[in-house]
Amino acid sequence: MKFIIQRDKLVQSVQDVLKAVSSRTTIPILTGIKIVATEEGVTLTGSDSDISIESFIPCEEDGSENVEVKTAGSVVLQARFFSEIIKKLPMDTVEIEVQNQYVTTIRSGKSEFNLNGQDAAEYPHLPQVEEQNVFRVPTDLLKNIIRQTVFAVSTSETRPILTGVNWKLENHELICIATDSHRLALRKAKVEAENNITCNVVIPGKSLNELNKILDDTNELLDIVVTENQVLFKAKNILFFSRLLDGNYPDTSRLIPAESKTDITVTTKEFLQAIDRASLLAREGRNNVVKLATLESDTLEVSSNSPEVGKVVEQIQSNSIDGEELKISFSAKYMMDALKALEGNEILINFTGAMRPFVIKTLHDDSMLQLILPVRTY
Amino acid sequence: MKFIIQRDKLVQSVQDVLKAVSSRTTIPILTGIKIVATEEGVTLTGSDSDISIESFIPCEEDGSENVEVKTAGSVVLQARFFSEIIKKLPMDTVEIEVQNQYVTTIRSGKSEFNLNGQDAAEYPHLPQVEEQNVFRVPTDLLKNIIRQTVFAVSTSETRPILTGVNWKLENHELICIATDSHRLALRKAKVEAENNITCNVVIPGKSLNELNKILDDTNELLDIVVTENQVLFKAKNILFFSRLLDGNYPDTSRLIPAESKTDITVTTKEFLQAIDRASLLAREGRNNVVKLATLESDTLEVSSNSPEVGKVVEQIQSNSIDGEELKISFSAKYMMDALKALEGNEILINFTGAMRPFVIKTLHDDSMLQLILPVRTY
Repeated sequence: MKFIIQRDKLVQSVQDVLKAVSSRTTIPILTGIKIVATEEGVTLTGSDSDISIESFIPCEEDGSENVEVKTAGSVVLQARFFSEIIKKLPMDTVEIEVQNQYVTTIRSGKSEFNLNGQDAAEYPHLPQVEEQNVFRVPTDLLKNIIRQTVFAVSTSETRPILTGVNWKLENHELICIATDSHRLALRKAKVEAENNITCNVVIPGKSLNELNKILDDTNELLDIVVTENQVLFKAKNILFFSRLLDGNYPDTSRLIPAESKTDITVTTKEFLQAIDRASLLAREGRNNVVKLATLESDTLEVSSNSPEVGKVVEQIQSNSIDGEELKISFSAKYMMDALKALEGNEILINFTGAMRPFVIKTLHDDSMLQLILPVRTY
Repeated sequence: MKFIIQRDKLVQSVQDVLKAVSSRTTIPILTGIKIVATEEGVTLTGSDSDISIESFIPCEEDGSENVEVKTAGSVVLQARFFSEIIKKLPMDTVEIEVQNQYVTTIRSGKSEFNLNGQDAAEYPHLPQVEEQNVFRVPTDLLKNIIRQTVFAVSTSETRPILTGVNWKLENHELICIATDSHRLALRKAKVEAENNITCNVVIPGKSLNELNKILDDTNELLDIVVTENQVLFKAKNILFFSRLLDGNYPDTSRLIPAESKTDITVTTKEFLQAIDRASLLAREGRNNVVKLATLESDTLEVSSNSPEVGKVVEQIQSNSIDGEELKISFSAKYMMDALKALEGNEILINFTGAMRPFVIKTLHDDSMLQLILPVRTY
């Protein structure tokens, strides 16, 4: 194998596949990056068995030359060293050449590295994904869907299925739900699906977080392929494979209240900042709880009390309060997470009493919903 | 105590004195910030017994009003909560008022905090510093002096005196020396000293690092007062006290070779980048050692070999090589630290053989010197 490559393209691709490489792995060769050079270009692969990422650098792209392949071939190089070396090389191009015994020469200007490599034939094969169930989403919409749900997955392994996000596709509508059983995030989106396919899978939160990091914020369509135990995201020059979580996702539809007793509309930013301030003292107690009460004249009061440190109280002018008076306590962190995930300047909160879950939405937008279980303190 | 203060001025002052506040302290009141309001303005104090920082916010400055003091007085507030609260308050001004039992109300807009405070009379007194030995340095020069020496102090407590920087003042010349016994940094500077005073003290490296963080990069003169066991830096509106280290600093003058056998001049940046690349593989071994050899035609070769990972070799065109041929090994980290501390585009390295300490200087500048002990490998 021998090729000359534009260094910035190589650095970007290595950064992408590196997201799948873990230093803690039981399969030693997975601490490496597989490099394959063919007539078409150079393909890099990183994997930790759960997530696999493949990045392709075509020889030519948009009329400019990225790679000149002298001899086709392949090798596996230590991911950490390879990525640090190419970042610090002195010139804009890099020559990579496999010598005897997989020792690989990396040349740039007067700098020459010889890295011990491994046989690419020993690198595990990527999952085989049959492209039967394919649907399409614009990349920027996918990034939003991930951002607005994945934060709500459980971080505890007591119910492993809750560490993933439930993706259900039916009638060209994708519904994504994440919950840690204290709060829930739901996002719906219309997607392009062939043959009106359906699916109901659970994607690990960690996979979605890594996927989000490597996707560009473009409106290009991205193909999503779902099989029984794998999902594949196909972006331009990037394939992202993730294993799916085993088991049935709980039915969350009954959790979401159909009616409400107190409805509040308030400016998102103002409300978020008041909760943030109140949480400064709440953080001292482990539960991070703030209180919300309705007052006269559409006024809200956010407060928190930490006997050892002090107390905080703040009034906010809401845009409207309809229905019953309310005093309720909840986690400031969950509320801030929910408010940051929602879009729009104004939010609507539907309460069904101080002991029932409540729902937060962007005003006049039903595609997103955040639900929080209150804490008993009043 | 009651005053109304510009929030940005308060935030800046709190950030400054916070540098001296440690959450791990045996004196509980030192986790707080002392606030004193007088007719002249507001003074904040933070301390961990070793370092004490006092920041003064005058009522008026440059024609604009910073503080309006309604009632003089004082209180001590928890540093961590107080600093987070004022950063997140909604308005540009803050009202601070001590109520009963040192409970302190912090008001801004519709947000109101009540923080439990403590009696300022219980806060330890700052060291009394008699202003007999005073000298003056421009602030930006002081920042450079610190930056160019403090990195070389020892981080190990086996010889506590080496965790500080030795400051010697004689004949209006300040000489600052730091060494961890593997390398040494020396910086000289002319200073304004009254009555041709002399001093010879050791200032903790930690103190100098914190001082450097709070000083602005101006050319305003800064007063430095030295006593038997304290040093006081007096910048505009800031007093920075540090305890001095006990004990005698070793005589390092014999360490610095007076003659040399091989002299090399090379472009700083090019040499630094080559060492940086060679160190990528050297990092694997705990000693982080790279090799340097002189070749024909004023060429230098930087190399490193880590049998498990691979090897790297790079040639650099030096500007001149005079004297004996040389092969030498040294710590890449020490070399990079030294090169980053030096100023100027071109450096001069004086070697006295592969086993002797060598000296790095900026070409045509004797005010700074970096010395490194080689490692035996050739």
